[in-house]
Amino acid sequence: MDTATTPRVAVIGAGYWGPNLARNFAASPEWTLVAVCDRDEARASKLAAAVGHVDVETSVDELLARDDLDAVAIATPAATHHPLTLAALRAGKHVVVEKPIADSIEKAQEMVDEAKRRGLVLMTDHTFCYTPVVAKIRELIENGDLGDILFVDSVRINLGLVQPDVDVFWDLAPHDLSILDFVLPGGLKPEYVAAHGGDPIGAGKACVGHLVLPIGDGAVASVHVNWLSPTKVRQMTIGGSRRTLIWDDLNPVQRLSVFDRGVTLESQSATELDGDAKAAAKVSYRLGDTWSPALPEREALREMVNEFAAAIREGRPARTDGEAGLRVLRVLEEATATMNGARA
Amino acid sequence: MDTATTPRVAVIGAGYWGPNLARNFAASPEWTLVAVCDRDEARASKLAAAVGHVDVETSVDELLARDDLDAVAIATPAATHHPLTLAALRAGKHVVVEKPIADSIEKAQEMVDEAKRRGLVLMTDHTFCYTPVVAKIRELIENGDLGDILFVDSVRINLGLVQPDVDVFWDLAPHDLSILDFVLPGGLKPEYVAAHGGDPIGAGKACVGHLVLPIGDGAVASVHVNWLSPTKVRQMTIGGSRRTLIWDDLNPVQRLSVFDRGVTLESQSATELDGDAKAAAKVSYRLGDTWSPALPEREALREMVNEFAAAIREGRPARTDGEAGLRVLRVLEEATATMNGARA
Amino acid sequence: MDTATTPRVAVIGAGYWGPNLARNFAASPEWTLVAVCDRDEARASKLAAAVGHVDVETSVDELLARDDLDAVAIATPAATHHPLTLAALRAGKHVVVEKPIADSIEKAQEMVDEAKRRGLVLMTDHTFCYTPVVAKIRELIENGDLGDILFVDSVRINLGLVQPDVDVFWDLAPHDLSILDFVLPGGLKPEYVAAHGGDPIGAGKACVGHLVLPIGDGAVASVHVNWLSPTKVRQMTIGGSRRTLIWDDLNPVQRLSVFDRGVTLESQSATELDGDAKAAAKVSYRLGDTWSPALPEREALREMVNEFAAAIREGRPARTDGEAGLRVLRVLEEATATMNGARA
Amino acid sequence: MDTATTPRVAVIGAGYWGPNLARNFAASPEWTLVAVCDRDEARASKLAAAVGHVDVETSVDELLARDDLDAVAIATPAATHHPLTLAALRAGKHVVVEKPIADSIEKAQEMVDEAKRRGLVLMTDHTFCYTPVVAKIRELIENGDLGDILFVDSVRINLGLVQPDVDVFWDLAPHDLSILDFVLPGGLKPEYVAAHGGDPIGAGKACVGHLVLPIGDGAVASVHVNWLSPTKVRQMTIGGSRRTLIWDDLNPVQRLSVFDRGVTLESQSATELDGDAKAAAKVSYRLGDTWSPALPEREALREMVNEFAAAIREGRPARTDGEAGLRVLRVLEEATATMNGARA
Repeated sequence: MDTATTPRVAVIGAGYWGPNLARNFAASPEWTLVAVCDRDEARASKLAAAVGHVDVETSVDELLARDDLDAVAIATPAATHHPLTLAALRAGKHVVVEKPIADSIEKAQEMVDEAKRRGLVLMTDHTFCYTPVVAKIRELIENGDLGDILFVDSVRINLGLVQPDVDVFWDLAPHDLSILDFVLPGGLKPEYVAAHGGDPIGAGKACVGHLVLPIGDGAVASVHVNWLSPTKVRQMTIGGSRRTLIWDDLNPVQRLSVFDRGVTLESQSATELDGDAKAAAKVSYRLGDTWSPALPEREALREMVNEFAAAIREGRPARTDGEAGLRVLRVLEEATATMNGARA
Repeated sequence: MDTATTPRVAVIGAGYWGPNLARNFAASPEWTLVAVCDRDEARASKLAAAVGHVDVETSVDELLARDDLDAVAIATPAATHHPLTLAALRAGKHVVVEKPIADSIEKAQEMVDEAKRRGLVLMTDHTFCYTPVVAKIRELIENGDLGDILFVDSVRINLGLVQPDVDVFWDLAPHDLSILDFVLPGGLKPEYVAAHGGDPIGAGKACVGHLVLPIGDGAVASVHVNWLSPTKVRQMTIGGSRRTLIWDDLNPVQRLSVFDRGVTLESQSATELDGDAKAAAKVSYRLGDTWSPALPEREALREMVNEFAAAIREGRPARTDGEAGLRVLRVLEEATATMNGARA
Repeated sequence: MDTATTPRVAVIGAGYWGPNLARNFAASPEWTLVAVCDRDEARASKLAAAVGHVDVETSVDELLARDDLDAVAIATPAATHHPLTLAALRAGKHVVVEKPIADSIEKAQEMVDEAKRRGLVLMTDHTFCYTPVVAKIRELIENGDLGDILFVDSVRINLGLVQPDVDVFWDLAPHDLSILDFVLPGGLKPEYVAAHGGDPIGAGKACVGHLVLPIGDGAVASVHVNWLSPTKVRQMTIGGSRRTLIWDDLNPVQRLSVFDRGVTLESQSATELDGDAKAAAKVSYRLGDTWSPALPEREALREMVNEFAAAIREGRPARTDGEAGLRVLRVLEEATATMNGARA
Repeated sequence: MDTATTPRVAVIGAGYWGPNLARNFAASPEWTLVAVCDRDEARASKLAAAVGHVDVETSVDELLARDDLDAVAIATPAATHHPLTLAALRAGKHVVVEKPIADSIEKAQEMVDEAKRRGLVLMTDHTFCYTPVVAKIRELIENGDLGDILFVDSVRINLGLVQPDVDVFWDLAPHDLSILDFVLPGGLKPEYVAAHGGDPIGAGKACVGHLVLPIGDGAVASVHVNWLSPTKVRQMTIGGSRRTLIWDDLNPVQRLSVFDRGVTLESQSATELDGDAKAAAKVSYRLGDTWSPALPEREALREMVNEFAAAIREGRPARTDGEAGLRVLRVLEEATATMNGARA
């Protein structure tokens, strides 16, 4: 592999998401797109033509046997992520794979281990983490502008298609969870997962879902997903000890607001409080300015493919690496396993 | 007791809420306010003068011994609700009592039973249920305008005083729960209560709380309360099979919106669906008009005291009777008992 | 000309707007797109290929000489609308022309007269009039749902490009004026035009503009356009004697709201009012429901080309005919002539 | 007059606004309220009792003859402002008078001149100028945070009482004009006044009004007032060369927003621009952060009476002095004189 020039990549899977990946790899100065691979040759050919007449492959084995290939992007059904990723890694290729990283934690762990053993980059395409707004949120938390995280509420609801293969948690929550994993210091490692799902229309799976995730030191994250809401809401509130932010993704005028407001408990403990049942504990309020940072216009997927290139070039994990994909998968599996107190 | 004229009432407790009750009883043509009772004579006298120079009593026993009294309104600390209500009922007086109806289910049950045995009205002052917007919501559900209830989400968050005696569930959720009890057909009788509380500021009690309440047939209600939010939200969404409503109490321009939108699952079962992992189940969407009913201007507490009079006059339970108070209390107790999976 | 089959059309001008027209004519079952005409052959060829390999013409004369052509769509600079339209009409072709219909009232009148004399359709492409929301507004007014129109306020402001050739009135107000012309009974025929422009950045032309248009019976329309506003506003309020509507084009959740509210003056005249300086006139208020009709998803330009076909087929004026273009042009010219009291 | 202690004041007029003034003078540590004066003794007595049993006067002459009085606040009908103010000034009393300062410019000028000659404070009660939000706006402009003012748009519309004695300009616009006078550097001195009023309901006076005020250097202010709007709007936008602010008085969450956005014209003149009709002039855009300053909770009228005391104590004009009242009156008179091009 020649790292002096731009790395060479192929996209496996020319279905729903593959064309977006191919378009961005083709347009990025960080990459050379060499091939598109799909069992359906017509589909592969059409995509290959659209992005500048790159090679068409219909066999993954033949693709991976090529010498002129450094990396692959896998955009196939979830059940195939595990075998394709292992094959690619064993052929010495770096891999970026769609989410969910795999359909079981064991398989995902095996993929992560294989990449580590071989010193290859394994990245999960958590696209949302590469939007300007999420980048800004991560920066605000890293810089300490929010202080300690006290609570997170994420709401992702709308009139949505009832999916035949997954419930509302697996359909919508991966977005929220991958973002949480990206912005929370140390990633998303909840103490436990409490999931409550409702199926009020008899769909045979949860169409309304609530996740509660204690994230340490009394802080709690919640995720509310719903396929049955008449209005669309995409909102995340992250409350900190110094400041709180609200990200309202459907408000183009003010997508991100940072509130310099909060509650601080004074030093004395609750037991020192006098007995007047109506007296409030000694808390202080900060009611400061609100601030809405300007956000650049930038395509998230372009950022993602560039980060993939940078991780390879610098020999470091990608910002949304296989471990990140594994952490998100772990929460989803735990949610399914314990839903509505099932395991308790 | 002479029911030919307006009933005569006394207010017990001249603290925080008592003056509001006294003012409304005094102003209502349905009532004659005859006395204000408080151990603190100065406080009682000040209130008695303010509402038109009614009698001042400092002893509940002497008050309840009066012949010229048909009913009492009890606005004292929660721990005293049980003995005062029992004494009043045993003295043959109708009672309206502040919420929570008592500080334990057993005591509340005893109060309810005593009233029933004596044929007296026992009412809980769930004030919010007498606002024009909640009355309209109940009407929409009763009329079948929403169809079957599929989900409810209630959010009540703001920068709030950390209370020394109660956590955020007991401070804020009684409002949501009493409203749910009022508008849901058959009242609030969840299959179970899942409560998750967070204390990220070391207050010694939950400051952030999530309640999930399965309410039958797969429908699920959630209540989110939070003392640490920089912005105030008072919003309830009630999703139905025919229509969905959103009540945004802080939007004076459009407090209540009814959406003629929804999702309907077609008749075939999920197992009949073909295997295409990306094909959606057969659902139909309705994307109709939105409608915001005009709401009258009306003081809720005035409605409440009038309902108390009507229940007495007509010999029927009040709309927010003791049973309603008991149902709300039961959810709160269950939440405390099982919080964060405690009992599981 | 054979009207038994779909009429045949050519698009003249392959610059900014021509491709949109060509794409819609090509896709419409009501039309057969036969040619694209532009002096720049490369530009014409590229467009012709993109819409399905129709003929390329570089000479308008040759295009108009074709027998297999029923109509043309003219999307060239405003100064050429007059000669091109006259030539097309004289060649017996129906014409739809971009706005403004011409660069002077005299020329526009000549075009209208020529079309009338020849019994051909002359249509102005007031695209906005074919959006679902404007169609609904027109319907509400035609049906009498709003009652008599009392006032109209239209605001169209944002950070906009300062155009070198036109001021903010000619850049932005044609949208508002063509909509007003479309929805007001009888079209836009103001008693006079009062225009006030400001040029606070030294651009050499108005960058901020206010139009006031008395539209009869004391009713007044205003149009506010501004290139210097930090936030984008696209809002029109139409107040009627029965109801009032607000169209907020940037609110996807509730684009159109109809308020069943209003003020009615009681019958007695103002001179009958008693002298109490603070007593209000006898007015009655209606504070009824608000209603937001569902709007279909539909491309406006598709509707426009279909209306062009229907007008030809039915031998009637198009809904936004040459007269409409003339009325809009008249207001713009009057605004320029009288701006800031210039003629007064 | 003894300025070592707090000055002594009387309120003349116990009608609509007088009680608010009396309450604030009584509560302010900067003042001693000594009397309330009204021809209607019962009305005066009731108010005097409510604010702490101050003296009751029914004769202005007797009131002004008192030695123990330093200042008066005049809250009587507009027609009486002139004689009462002159009498008070001639009796050596400082005066704060309700708006409008008088019912003609000549009278107002005479009042201003009389106060100046006698070295007394003459203040106009432009209450809105003492709100925290207007104080902040003035500060932002004074500090240069907005840069040069380019445009101002003020909207004050709602379903309002049709007043028998004044039109919508005199009823609502004094608020906007007094605020503009307060925040614009040098006060409100428009180059001319263009007023357009509509009376679509036959009220015999303008119910819908538009004011356009060129305020120098191409900048333009507009004021839109309307009694017939179904929704209430209280919004002012002030566009500057450096930043722009929007004050939305009905948005409690974000009353004031400052946008670090704008348009700057590059140096070359418009005549240097090339002829491409669609090329934009060389402008640069700034798309920076938005900022919403925290505003203190403070009663405006308390601030106003304190400013009155401070102006007397420091021997300086009040911030909303007689000249300010005169400037506002001048715009209103000019609007009436020239409405709908009357004088042109």
